Amino acid sequence: MEPKTLFEAEKTNGHKTEFKIRQLEISDHAKGFTELLGQLSQCPSLSQSEFEARFADLVALGDDHHIAVVEDPTSGRIIATGSIFIEKKFLRGCSSVGHIEDVVVDKATRGGHLGQRIVNYLIDRAKAVGCYKVILDCTPELRVFYEKCGFVEKNVQMALYF
Amino acid sequence: MEPKTLFEAEKTNGHKTEFKIRQLEISDHAKGFTELLGQLSQCPSLSQSEFEARFADLVALGDDHHIAVVEDPTSGRIIATGSIFIEKKFLRGCSSVGHIEDVVVDKATRGGHLGQRIVNYLIDRAKAVGCYKVILDCTPELRVFYEKCGFVEKNVQMALYF
Repeated sequence: MEPKTLFEAEKTNGHKTEFKIRQLEISDHAKGFTELLGQLSQCPSLSQSEFEARFADLVALGDDHHIAVVEDPTSGRIIATGSIFIEKKFLRGCSSVGHIEDVVVDKATRGGHLGQRIVNYLIDRAKAVGCYKVILDCTPELRVFYEKCGFVEKNVQMALYF
Repeated sequence: MEPKTLFEAEKTNGHKTEFKIRQLEISDHAKGFTELLGQLSQCPSLSQSEFEARFADLVALGDDHHIAVVEDPTSGRIIATGSIFIEKKFLRGCSSVGHIEDVVVDKATRGGHLGQRIVNYLIDRAKAVGCYKVILDCTPELRVFYEKCGFVEKNVQMALYF
């Protein structure tokens, strides 16, 4: 099944607008993509060449890495994003696992279900490439949001910062 | 810093043996690598060509994917393994995160700190390639083990099985 990419959502001003989920493009650097990531974690500004170099690293991974974005058709700004990378394993008959990362919706646009749309789109991508599961780590506050997307709490995430 | 690869560990029979951590090789298919993974999760037998195809997929990722193994010099069997893949991000100035997966020590060899050695080796690899953190998901019972390896509990892992 191809991921659903077109949907209608209500903006904070109450108007319904048609949004499209699409893959990140180089031109999104000028449309506030890294500023949006900065609402999630530290994301200092990148030069055009730094952005393009990392973009090329990820494009080289082909279908094993995908960054989805939603652009506001009115403002031309990136207002939601989420990424998935596919981890190939020997387990389960050489199966794969989809890892969802860096899901963020612009704080001015929250409440319009854009986050859920992005997550569903990433889930569909994982299904399409034959993953046996998709996983992600989140703060306890986001548990309910991800349960609405079909996830169940499974384990604990451990981290070691350098 | 290069990861430490040679160490002495006590086997269950009380004898000290020198073990070496090294990268997975194709010949490890005949040394019980997939049977060892089967102690962690479902891992049906693979034909030589299936094993080689997945091995090639992972080798193609270069330094971004590494499976570490420990071979028992006496039996010639793989008795411990763990893997890491490096996720490249735009966040934190195009930094990277190391994801540790599929750590398992042969149940006949547990207690000899092989698990901790493997995890430390994978942590060192993540450091060597400039990751800002290394993360993993585990059952609550393994929290204490990973705390001994330097990790702290950070978040919850959510999963969706297909």
